[in-house]
Amino acid sequence: MSEIKDITPRDVDFAKWYTDVVTKANLVDYSSVKGSMIICPYGYAIWEEMQKVLDQKFKETGHENVQMPMFIPESLLNVEKDHVTGFAPEVAWVTHGGKDKLDERLCVRPTSEILFCDYYKKIIKSYRDLPKLYNQWCTIVRWEKTTRPFLRSREILWQEGHTMHATKEEALNETLKMLHIYEDFQRNYLAIPVIVGKKTEKEKFAGAEASYSLEAMMYDGVALQNGTSHYFGNGFAKAFGIEFLNKENKLETPYQTSWGVTTRMIGSLIMVHGDDRGLVIPPNIAPTKVIVIPIGDSLEVKEETKSLTNALTKASISYKVDDTNKTPGFKFAEAEVKGYPIRLEIGPRDLSEGMLTLVRRDTLEKIRINKEEVISKIEKILPIMQQDMYNKALKRRDSMIYEAHNYQEFTEIAQNKPGFIKANWCGDEACENKIKDDFSMKSRCLIENEEIKGNCVCCGKEAKYRLYFGRQY
Amino acid sequence: MSEIKDITPRDVDFAKWYTDVVTKANLVDYSSVKGSMIICPYGYAIWEEMQKVLDQKFKETGHENVQMPMFIPESLLNVEKDHVTGFAPEVAWVTHGGKDKLDERLCVRPTSEILFCDYYKKIIKSYRDLPKLYNQWCTIVRWEKTTRPFLRSREILWQEGHTMHATKEEALNETLKMLHIYEDFQRNYLAIPVIVGKKTEKEKFAGAEASYSLEAMMYDGVALQNGTSHYFGNGFAKAFGIEFLNKENKLETPYQTSWGVTTRMIGSLIMVHGDDRGLVIPPNIAPTKVIVIPIGDSLEVKEETKSLTNALTKASISYKVDDTNKTPGFKFAEAEVKGYPIRLEIGPRDLSEGMLTLVRRDTLEKIRINKEEVISKIEKILPIMQQDMYNKALKRRDSMIYEAHNYQEFTEIAQNKPGFIKANWCGDEACENKIKDDFSMKSRCLIENEEIKGNCVCCGKEAKYRLYFGRQY
Repeated sequence: MSEIKDITPRDVDFAKWYTDVVTKANLVDYSSVKGSMIICPYGYAIWEEMQKVLDQKFKETGHENVQMPMFIPESLLNVEKDHVTGFAPEVAWVTHGGKDKLDERLCVRPTSEILFCDYYKKIIKSYRDLPKLYNQWCTIVRWEKTTRPFLRSREILWQEGHTMHATKEEALNETLKMLHIYEDFQRNYLAIPVIVGKKTEKEKFAGAEASYSLEAMMYDGVALQNGTSHYFGNGFAKAFGIEFLNKENKLETPYQTSWGVTTRMIGSLIMVHGDDRGLVIPPNIAPTKVIVIPIGDSLEVKEETKSLTNALTKASISYKVDDTNKTPGFKFAEAEVKGYPIRLEIGPRDLSEGMLTLVRRDTLEKIRINKEEVISKIEKILPIMQQDMYNKALKRRDSMIYEAHNYQEFTEIAQNKPGFIKANWCGDEACENKIKDDFSMKSRCLIENEEIKGNCVCCGKEAKYRLYFGRQY
Repeated sequence: MSEIKDITPRDVDFAKWYTDVVTKANLVDYSSVKGSMIICPYGYAIWEEMQKVLDQKFKETGHENVQMPMFIPESLLNVEKDHVTGFAPEVAWVTHGGKDKLDERLCVRPTSEILFCDYYKKIIKSYRDLPKLYNQWCTIVRWEKTTRPFLRSREILWQEGHTMHATKEEALNETLKMLHIYEDFQRNYLAIPVIVGKKTEKEKFAGAEASYSLEAMMYDGVALQNGTSHYFGNGFAKAFGIEFLNKENKLETPYQTSWGVTTRMIGSLIMVHGDDRGLVIPPNIAPTKVIVIPIGDSLEVKEETKSLTNALTKASISYKVDDTNKTPGFKFAEAEVKGYPIRLEIGPRDLSEGMLTLVRRDTLEKIRINKEEVISKIEKILPIMQQDMYNKALKRRDSMIYEAHNYQEFTEIAQNKPGFIKANWCGDEACENKIKDDFSMKSRCLIENEEIKGNCVCCGKEAKYRLYFGRQY
């Protein structure tokens, strides 16, 4: 039990707390391969839940899964200038196959715009071939110097959608449609409120015309980019010479998007909802919604466990039974560190009165209930928990967003209050850079639904935009 | 239409037929990356069906999914001697990360025994930690010189199970249990009869103590290894120093298995069931079971299409509607090349009599049915098709298995009759090598349920085993 209880308190050392939780909840483990992590069964099960929900949403909106090569020849990577400049410094290079030196180096894909463009060039000939709405689930590699489980890793599990459209409008719609699918998913499944918005020129994706991101705020006030959706215009398509015959039989260049989310979302699940006892997994994404803990091994307890698990199966509520010979206290602690939404204790004393004890992981509230009502109670509590967890995260996030009207105010907030800062901006990259240099705070995204009045928080010139600023993982 | 009709007849040039079918059915496409293929939406959808069924079977038998690193440091690859000797010649080496040369080369995993052992060493301490039943779905890389879609590729999508057990018996049971899960899957879903058996010493997996394989026979009599299951004894465990405390508190070395199947199974689906019109997908693995083809665009046809697709949805029968403006003839040809099990034609003449036309892809039989009975008819036909396809494949396979009693007989069969040859064998690798050199026929697997009488088909000495021989993809 001590092993599990040894979680550094969240408010004492958040970084240490995070590492304690991911390892003690057995989400990941460190491998002998520097910079690469092992995703353990519980961590992978959460990813499978995420995949299941998102994959269905992608398919419902007409997307099809494919699988592209994992390697990109160097000459192909060089086709789009901004892209290669952005990615070349962080790719892994394959130089040998067996004993033979390759004629041309191959990089392990850091993202697949290039591979999709190379393929689209081959298969898009006519307006009848459009739109192309492809997605792939795969692993990508980025040669990061410092790594942290789920947050920054050399190998990343993700999905990447890559689409081509006949018109600019259609491509822009797709970019925003997928952004909002992500937003709904994070809200309704991960119980995470996200700010969605456009990135500045400085922060946009290498080669994109516009990048949109989903910015979540962690418990410590630091941002985690929980997904992105990019509009490429026809820059890549031109670089690759992709053209189609339109209805008037004239050649046009198609418009492109890409969008992706990664196992990083597991990192934000942990850092938004976790507490000093470990994980708290929102019911809608929990691989195991109920942990059943029989106390003692009397016949009555065993029989009730069996009848209860049958009822859970029948109600399609995922569960696990902890019938190991560990002490109840140890089992409770373990269930808490794993963050199962509901714990059901089947004890002989309760049982003699026809009762069971149900514990909500988010509030730790203990509820004694009649054993006949347990399924209906669980069915009622799960959606309430989901909503409560979202509301709690939203409230905390909103309490950590500040407005700065001038550089003095910005400085004071940046130095004293973790969270995001809203501020006016002239649009000059120099101001964005100064804030980054002074406070390690990058612009998160543009605020598009608020009136712009006043001056740039940095230089004092007339403001053209409003921005969120924040430190980031 | 001509494009689709241009499939080389199967009996004229089987290799060309195969290539025509995989590309015209849009299962794969060639990429600019030498040796790597693109799996197109239809090919990937078949793989997703395979994954769905197998993943459920793995989970039902207690296995958990994980994700290990994709890279193996060279020093780690060198730990098990037989393994490194077997794989080093065909791995891809990463030597640089960004601009920096790595201190140690990393190979892209060709298989993950080593990574699992390295992890198991860390997490297995006590008999309570056993068994460990892990599986992963991922991509592996083997630097093949010549490649063919699904059959031999530099990048392979697969699953690999890696398990550790306290006893030899338990590990052997696991090896055979998974072999039989594969066998059932191939029989009941892929409608492919497989011969399962133990590989000879010469043909076993690098580092394994015993390898079992599933040998399917393609239409042309050539073998395709459709999956393998290996028993490792404790060789790897010893090389990696994996030990656990048993119930008596003494240190022991655990026993290991691994087992895997790949997208290669798609290759065997094509080559076992396909015909001169294209693919024939068995109903139980078909992503789309019914293709609905409305003929003309009269109101009656449109309404019937709508009511029929509603009924298919309600009955959970997967379908697609081809309502493009192509000619019916073109649509029929396209449906045939894709191998959808059932084609439903909704034509105005049939409809005026309250009828529809249903076409079975395997037999091409046309059945006129009352439109009210279509769902019940489909539900009845699908399992019959599944069984018929299996029976047909079995009959053809069995008709191409021959017995050779001496080298003259062996030579005659090997030179004139495609298929497998059953023969007695003394157990000497020299005989196995001679047959391979003379006829390019490798031993497929040992025949364990037949009495051994007579002499080695090659050297004439006393036989100790019976073997299947066959050419292979």
